[in-house]
Amino acid sequence: MHMLQHLTGLVAMMKLTISKVTGRARLGVITSLGQSGEKSLEVPGCLLYTKTASPPHLTHDTLQTIEGVPPVTHVTLSSLAEHQEVLEEYKEGIGKFAGLSDAVLYCSVSDPVTPSPNGYNTNKTVSVWGSGGRIELTPQKFMSIQSALKVDWFQCLADGEVMPSGCSRKRAKKSVDRSLSFLDECLQLLAKNDVLKDKVVIGAIEGGDLLDERLRSARETAKRPVGGFLLDAFQGTAMTQETKLNLISSVTAELPEEKPRFIHGVGRPDEVLNCVELGVDLFDSSFPYEVAERGCALSFDHQYEPDPETAGGHPSPDRTPEFNVLDKAELCDVEKNREDQTENDKLELDQSQMTSYEICLKEKRFREDFRPLLPGCTCYCCRNHSRAYVHHLLISKELLAGILLIIHNFQHYFSFFRSARAALRDGKLHLLKEAIQRRAP
Amino acid sequence: MHMLQHLTGLVAMMKLTISKVTGRARLGVITSLGQSGEKSLEVPGCLLYTKTASPPHLTHDTLQTIEGVPPVTHVTLSSLAEHQEVLEEYKEGIGKFAGLSDAVLYCSVSDPVTPSPNGYNTNKTVSVWGSGGRIELTPQKFMSIQSALKVDWFQCLADGEVMPSGCSRKRAKKSVDRSLSFLDECLQLLAKNDVLKDKVVIGAIEGGDLLDERLRSARETAKRPVGGFLLDAFQGTAMTQETKLNLISSVTAELPEEKPRFIHGVGRPDEVLNCVELGVDLFDSSFPYEVAERGCALSFDHQYEPDPETAGGHPSPDRTPEFNVLDKAELCDVEKNREDQTENDKLELDQSQMTSYEICLKEKRFREDFRPLLPGCTCYCCRNHSRAYVHHLLISKELLAGILLIIHNFQHYFSFFRSARAALRDGKLHLLKEAIQRRAP
Repeated sequence: MHMLQHLTGLVAMMKLTISKVTGRARLGVITSLGQSGEKSLEVPGCLLYTKTASPPHLTHDTLQTIEGVPPVTHVTLSSLAEHQEVLEEYKEGIGKFAGLSDAVLYCSVSDPVTPSPNGYNTNKTVSVWGSGGRIELTPQKFMSIQSALKVDWFQCLADGEVMPSGCSRKRAKKSVDRSLSFLDECLQLLAKNDVLKDKVVIGAIEGGDLLDERLRSARETAKRPVGGFLLDAFQGTAMTQETKLNLISSVTAELPEEKPRFIHGVGRPDEVLNCVELGVDLFDSSFPYEVAERGCALSFDHQYEPDPETAGGHPSPDRTPEFNVLDKAELCDVEKNREDQTENDKLELDQSQMTSYEICLKEKRFREDFRPLLPGCTCYCCRNHSRAYVHHLLISKELLAGILLIIHNFQHYFSFFRSARAALRDGKLHLLKEAIQRRAP
Repeated sequence: MHMLQHLTGLVAMMKLTISKVTGRARLGVITSLGQSGEKSLEVPGCLLYTKTASPPHLTHDTLQTIEGVPPVTHVTLSSLAEHQEVLEEYKEGIGKFAGLSDAVLYCSVSDPVTPSPNGYNTNKTVSVWGSGGRIELTPQKFMSIQSALKVDWFQCLADGEVMPSGCSRKRAKKSVDRSLSFLDECLQLLAKNDVLKDKVVIGAIEGGDLLDERLRSARETAKRPVGGFLLDAFQGTAMTQETKLNLISSVTAELPEEKPRFIHGVGRPDEVLNCVELGVDLFDSSFPYEVAERGCALSFDHQYEPDPETAGGHPSPDRTPEFNVLDKAELCDVEKNREDQTENDKLELDQSQMTSYEICLKEKRFREDFRPLLPGCTCYCCRNHSRAYVHHLLISKELLAGILLIIHNFQHYFSFFRSARAALRDGKLHLLKEAIQRRAP
């Protein structure tokens, strides 16, 4: 039992303290993070999304102008695995290599934006795709890459394919068995590895859309000395929202209270709040990145306090721009988008991925709109530039458009999580949910 | 004569003071720039290059981290003409629209990086291409766009096609006649235009590769109340270096001393110094942008002071990195590039445009090179990141690579102009030229 005690002791370095539980939603803080243990991360919250270990399109100086940047940076093994040799030669880990030397780092196996293709995992290996093609990972290979990356937390190697709805029981069961066996092997390797022994392993819960397999995965993973849990393979639309929420609800009920629960690829504000209500603690921030990449700006209201100037105390769509709310005209975005469709077809807009939480700055209607992306927003872009200017940059294909959009979207998304925590603290999550639901598809 | 007096009076608002002339090279300063007249621009110098009025890929915050940014920003009419309506609606000019409200702005007709196709100009119109296609500009249309742009200086409409070597005398003569007629018409419109009457017009010198036409163009343009001269249509490789330099030499000899001389699309360090020696004052900074766009970093030495530690006082290729010099291995770049060619072919490198003043970070040899782009450089990128990291960003196609490269290249290029002025001041331009020539192709 020496090994397990040893590991448990180390996992305790990172500590989740829950200060309030409402229904099953948890408000809390993860402390003792970072090299000197002085950093902390509030939950519910999100991680800072990166592409190949850099916050997309942002220098660190620019990143520092964004309010509310999460203290934990999320890197993805799939984009870094092929750099193993370089990082071994470099010796000081991915954080310092990417100029993030003081960041707390978490590493997931896949990028939530570009999951690996299905059908390549075996009992012995998991495949990920870098820019140079497929890389087959055994637990040994995985742990040797982690030794080169030197992150603080890492998701354990897992058979995390998003399974098509109605896939075989055999396949779902296999995902659980394989992931548990990878976890055991990785934990054994960890104990023997001087570089990694103080790192926190996040165990992945698999099992496709089968409730009993998900529960088995949760129970078995919880028996191992992991520092937290990833509710894996819930991204995309393979499952209905209802199935997803039922599974998530059952899984979180099975997990110990004192360890954080992660989810990836679930980022739409209404879905985030649904997960928060079911006890999920940590999300990634790939959603605001994807919104920026399609030329869109997050424009949803996450004020949940009734406007004091509005009689009756009910939230009203008529609130003033100072309250971070779009005007009435803006609320008709979706209808307006449809009307503009013919015109915008010429601009090659791909709005198929668009959600009702954003506006598309490529649209012609913004050509002479000199308001900020979101009236009342205090981000660098909204303080300095107009919708018309961002439209003009997008049409001119100037990269600055993407930079300005990610600045706005990150800041807005991080402030949404701040609102979620404040709403939980104030016992008003239901009001925030109502505000968010008004824009839901 | 009332009108001309009026104009001459206004042109005097911007003042060039020459402090030293060495041969024909001029050291000086242009004062009384900007709305309140408090800004100044040292010559020889360069303008800040922009794409559609934004410094490429840079937020203004990031721009401010670059040392030595020129106080005059260079926008291009070709990329802005199609936004005339929006800017008329906006009313406050392109500077404020692009968030550059305190910048001094100069507007050229074409973008030095993407000149307009030949064959579309007529006696009445000049054509430019925006993202939406061709726009035909009459002097009236041109001046109405300028009324919407509201820049401080603008190059006058001109028939500025880069003519193929050996083109007809008739075509060259026509370029001069048309440009003079456009200039006269624009100056007349200027005098009648309340918005534009305090703006400075830069006259374009045309004439292809015919010396007598170039001289006629210079003499006739100099008779008009312009604030400076653009030596136009010298970009590209249609003329040999020798022909270019002979023409430039003859033209500058013809121009009045008290007005600045601009050139566009001539940016390679050795070519810049050749032009400086012939009395050209102002260059654009599209060269460092083009270098960044091909994944390359400027790496040339522009120290002209002999290293005090080297006996004999001669510049030596053995100087230490502290002196901003690459090591010996680096000086063999060109040879090394050839050796790596087969390997690099796989990376789809387009090195056909590469000069000997840069290194290509896409090359595999930088994979494990943990030095800064240029040892000794104080730019944001060199202070924070390694060649290996920039290589990794380029291979991963992450836009941050382009941002980091433009930061480095701009700062290095601006410091090269600072060195050129210092060398002129110290009477050591010949030493700088030697240092630069050692890397010339």
